[in-house]
Formats: sequence, C-alpha cells, structure tokens
Amino acid sequence: MQPRDLSDHVAYEAGRGIEEVARELDRDPSEFVKLASNENPHGPSPAAAVAISDAAGTVNSYPKAAHADLTAAVADRWGVADAQVWLANGGDGAIDYLHRATLDPGDDVLVPEPGFAYYGMSARFHHGGVREYSLSKNDEFTQDAGTVLESYDGERVVWLTSPHNPTGSTIDLEEIDRLADETADETLIVVDEAYGEFADVDSAVSLIEGRNGFAARDDVAVLRTFSKAYGLAGVRLGYAIVPDAWSDAYARVNTPFAASELACRAGLAAIDDDEHVDRTVETTLAAREYMRDHVEAHVWESEGNFVLVDVGDASAVAEEMQARGVIVRDCTSFGLPGCIRITCGTDEETDRAVETLNATLADLAADSGTTVEYDGTGDANPEVPDT
Amino acid sequence: MQPRDLSDHVAYEAGRGIEEVARELDRDPSEFVKLASNENPHGPSPAAAVAISDAAGTVNSYPKAAHADLTAAVADRWGVADAQVWLANGGDGAIDYLHRATLDPGDDVLVPEPGFAYYGMSARFHHGGVREYSLSKNDEFTQDAGTVLESYDGERVVWLTSPHNPTGSTIDLEEIDRLADETADETLIVVDEAYGEFADVDSAVSLIEGRNGFAARDDVAVLRTFSKAYGLAGVRLGYAIVPDAWSDAYARVNTPFAASELACRAGLAAIDDDEHVDRTVETTLAAREYMRDHVEAHVWESEGNFVLVDVGDASAVAEEMQARGVIVRDCTSFGLPGCIRITCGTDEETDRAVETLNATLADLAADSGTTVEYDGTGDANPEVPDT
Repeated sequence: MQPRDLSDHVAYEAGRGIEEVARELDRDPSEFVKLASNENPHGPSPAAAVAISDAAGTVNSYPKAAHADLTAAVADRWGVADAQVWLANGGDGAIDYLHRATLDPGDDVLVPEPGFAYYGMSARFHHGGVREYSLSKNDEFTQDAGTVLESYDGERVVWLTSPHNPTGSTIDLEEIDRLADETADETLIVVDEAYGEFADVDSAVSLIEGRNGFAARDDVAVLRTFSKAYGLAGVRLGYAIVPDAWSDAYARVNTPFAASELACRAGLAAIDDDEHVDRTVETTLAAREYMRDHVEAHVWESEGNFVLVDVGDASAVAEEMQARGVIVRDCTSFGLPGCIRITCGTDEETDRAVETLNATLADLAADSGTTVEYDGTGDANPEVPDT
Repeated sequence: MQPRDLSDHVAYEAGRGIEEVARELDRDPSEFVKLASNENPHGPSPAAAVAISDAAGTVNSYPKAAHADLTAAVADRWGVADAQVWLANGGDGAIDYLHRATLDPGDDVLVPEPGFAYYGMSARFHHGGVREYSLSKNDEFTQDAGTVLESYDGERVVWLTSPHNPTGSTIDLEEIDRLADETADETLIVVDEAYGEFADVDSAVSLIEGRNGFAARDDVAVLRTFSKAYGLAGVRLGYAIVPDAWSDAYARVNTPFAASELACRAGLAAIDDDEHVDRTVETTLAAREYMRDHVEAHVWESEGNFVLVDVGDASAVAEEMQARGVIVRDCTSFGLPGCIRITCGTDEETDRAVETLNATLADLAADSGTTVEYDGTGDANPEVPDT
C-alpha cells in the first residue's frame, strides 16, 4: 500500500547548515560562515541560554506552567489579553493553527510570490488550495493593497509578509487596513512579522486593537517569532496575535503541547532581555547599510535582517561563495534565480561576505569574458525574473 | 469575522502539573508528587540533560545536522533504513504526518475508546472523520483483531495502542498481522508503542520488516516516543517507523523543522543511555507489581508505566488524593468515570500513592456509609462504564 497522492506537496528547502556543507565538501566547519538562514549573529539571548541549561534536568515533565507564564508575558508586551496569544511550535506551528481555524476543504489561501514556502505547504496540509499574488511586477517588490487585490478572488486567508522574505520590503498599515476593507467579510488577513524587530514600521497589532488612529478589526492576525531577533531558531517558538473574537478557537486547533517546555522557558527569559535584542538590531542595521554601500551589485532596500542582491546567476555565485567559505541563500527556490539573500552577520562576517561576493562577481565576470554592468549607485534596474 | 465551525474539535485535556495545582490550592509545590502524566520518575537521561546544556548557547541556529544524526541512530536501533524513520515534534507530530500521508477529506480513522484523544483530534485537523472501536466490551480491555474488526468499516487508518493508555493492555503481533490481512488494501494499521519499553512484547517493527516469522508488510507503521522511558517529555520528540514504500512521503508531509535542535541533541544522547532506560524500566516494573499487590481496589494488569485502578468515583477520589498531595489522572475524560490512572513513580512516590489511595478509599467509604466491596484478590469484576 502507498500514501495518498501527494504530488501537490513539495518538500521544504531550508538553508544549509555549516556542518552539512563542511561534511559534503570534506572541509573543516571552522572555515565557514553561514549567512543563509537569517539567524542571529550574536547567538541566542544569553538569559535564554541560561534558562535552557537550568531546565535541562527537568525535561522529563510535559510542558505546562511555563506556557501560561510566557503567554502572559507576550500578552503584556503587546497590551492584549492572554487569550489573544496563540503560542506555537515556531511560526510554522502558528501558521498551521490559523489554517485550522479558517480552512474548510477546498478553501483557498492567497500567498506572495516570491515568498515563504510554508504558507502554501500548510494550507495544502489542511486540504486548502493555494493561489499567488506577484510581488515581482515592480522592480522594488513594493507591497500595497493593490498588489494583492489584483490577484485576490475571495480567498479565505491572505498572507502578507512585512518585512518580506526574501525581498525585505514592507507594507504600510494604511494599506493593510484598506486591503482588509476591500476583501470579503470572510477573509482573514495575516501579517507575518517574523522580521518585525528589524523594521522601522508599526506592528499590525495596531489594526487588531484599534490603536494609532485605526478602528479595531476582527479580520487581521499577526504572526511573530522568537527565531530571529531573540536568537531562538533552534528551540522552535513563535506565536500569533489574534482578534478577541478568535480567542476561543485556540484550544480547538492546538496540539496537546503547543511549545516545548525548554522553548517556553527560553522565551520567557529572552522576552525581557532587551540588551540582546538592542545589540542584535544595531548590528543588523549597520550590516544592512554596509552591504548596500559596498556590494558591487544591486542591493534592494531591506527592513529585515538580510539583503537581497541581484547577482545574475544565483546558483553559480552561491556555489562559488560557498567554496570560498561563505554560505548564502540561492533564491532560485524562491523563484528568483538571479538573486542571492545574505543575512546580516557580525561586522566581521558581513565584511567577509561583501569581500567574497565582490571578488566572486569579478572572477565570474572575468571567466565568462563579460563585464559587470553596475554603476555603483545602488539604483540599478535589474531584470526581475518572471514568477 | 469568526473562525470556521470548530464544534467538532475538542480541546486536549492534559494531566495537571504540580506548579499549576499548587498555585490553584495556594500551597507549596514541594508538598505534592505528580503521578498523573506517565512521566519518568528518574528524570531525563542524564546524558541528554548534559547535551541540552551543551547546546544551549547555539540555539540561534535552525535545526539541521543533529536531525540527520538522530535519524541514523534511530534507524540503527531498529535495523531499518534512515528514510523509514520519520522524526517529529513529539509522537503527536508523527500522528499528524501519518494522517497527512493518508487522509483525503472525508476519509475516516478508527480509534480505540477509551484511548489517546489526539488520534481523533489530529484526524479532524486534517478533515478526516473519526469512528471508534470499544475496548470496554470485556472487563480486561483485551485487544485482538476481533475487537477492532467488530467496528471496522473500511477506515483509512486504524489506530492501535500497545501497551494501551490508559488500560495497560497489549495486542499480540499475530493479531495485528491478522487484522492487517482482514482490513482493506487501503487501510494503514498504526501501532502506537509509546510505552513499548515497559512491555514484555515484541515491537510491530517485526511486521514491517518481516522478522520473527512474519512476512514483511507495507500496511503497518509504528509510533515511538522519547517522552516516557527516555524521560524527554518536555523537549517534544517522537517518530514513526514506516514501511519502505512510504519513505518518500516524509519530505512531503513534514514541516520545515520536524524537531527542535535541542530535542535532536537530547535524543541522540538519550538513545545510547542504556543505564538510564534500564533503571527506569526496573523501577517501573517494581512499582507496577507493588501497586497490584497493595492497592485495595481492582488494579488491571498493565504493560505500561502506569496502572488503571477501579475506584468507583474517579473524580472524588482523584480530588481527595490531590488534596492529600498525590496528583493522579482522573480517567473520566477517557470515558472511564470509575477509574484513576497512577503513574509508576520512584519507590517512595509509589509507596505514598498506595498509602494515600487506600486511606482515601477507606475514608470516602466511611463518609458515605458504604463499605468497599473488594476481596483482596486483584480479580474483582468491576463495572466497566458504557463508552
């Protein structure tokens, strides 16, 4: 006997780890830096690391008390009720919960293209259909209500990513508000703010709660994660903030243990570790600016902890950079075969990435006998691939 | 706007933690022992606790290399190919994966009643229907092919739990083999062996691999967890062993990160820590026997790390035991309002549980003016509630 027809289901392609790459190339892991998965270059919150060590001896117990404490801490941070916080096993888990709360078989979701693959994967896991809206119609991947409405056709859930991965663009709250107004009553707008801490824009929680001049909405939810600014990618912890009217659904769409005990304890420590978050954001902003100023190719403006770079042949450049010890993300799997994405590293890592990228571009251009057509202004008008 | 109709979805009711109970009763946590969630009384594998501490400083990285290493270690332990091991975020995660690989909307699963609630919850999350087979038809909760076939009606997945939670009964491999023969070609039999380490029975992996006189089958899968014998309930780690023909489906039903980095590293350390597992099993077997010999009520034979006890009014007994500092599981939520489940603790914990239970039963009987009708043989013929 066989599994059912899974041909619509595509495997998730994660950024590759240093150990994995070093094993494959039979080299020492210390030769590499990894700037491929938008991880925190300063490590986890030190307070969180201590909390994990402290809890290591008691992980024979099922998750419980820390879950309630962390929920309360997150609710406090956003000024919402505890019941509006849906803790989950990573942002991925929260995506699943939102789909369970919305999708009947055959309902569709609308997702950005390019974009985070798991929105669509999760919808298919829940027997939903997936339609796409294009961010590649304009050179700067601008996001506004029109970008979405052009493709919108009554889907049950619309996914926004702000800042967007892998492009780094954001969408204004006014535009989200307008989008929610112009979509059907039964359409939920979810704003994935995984990179929110790095952006100079207000959270869409303001739309849910009716702050900063907006009226409160019951058709917007927000997704956040501990993976990026807090440096906890390896523990799997994220959450959704939902409108009050959605609170009761959590228990009905949740797994027995939404997040591991270690994750909850780490999150509790990290959420108060402002020093670590501030340092992370400061390093990120400096690295973003440095890459835009020094990379000799077009670098898009980004509000995330990464930049997207137009390199022409992403696979060739990423492979050559990897051979030179710098692992970056080939965005071919995002539908952008001309682009790589580079995570903001420590100053040293970012320096090395820029130097390696510029040398790689020069060498590949020399090999192929072409010259790099880059005017040094950062305002190049690159060819954006059809998606 | 509101979530879709979730009235079929029921919240999971987990065993309560000491902190939670102590807070509610405004007492000190140290006054309590918890024998309500079948956790490991000796804590996590010490090697796993060290591995967690060692990894705490690097959890900024997404899970990756340890996942492959743990997969290989699990495959080696069972003598199967790496691709037959589906690591997951707890046994719950593996239940989701198996449903994703099998259920089209409207397909049904067949689950034991009483039994683990998440089989049905997960099926509903994937728009499957849930039907039940009754284990309560006979006093000893005996499981054989006939128990299931009596209710079987072509369901896509049949869930067996062996040892069964909360009854402790097992099902022989011959019976599973016969069940798989007599069900439709398109029916997958999943054997949840979460408590397998405590049982004196062979794993159903023998049916998948065709060992010990059985022909290899492609319609049986096995579920295992690190939560019980390895003491890692708080990190969330489990897996399915699937037939070779199912290997390729894993990537298509998997989330981006099946199990956290901390969980994988803990699992890698725990799987080789035979001393901890041996000690845990030894303590469990002694506690099981002690409870059967000394509890003054009917105790069912159990192959798990717990026993089911017929106490008459489970809620009253569990509440009174809790007031006396011993937290046990009221099995009303399992559909057994006459029964409590007590986890095998350390010798001291088990002693205290038995003493507290016997005193509670005597006091409640005195209060109500009735006498406990128990002949001391352990062969009482209790009334089993309709389910």
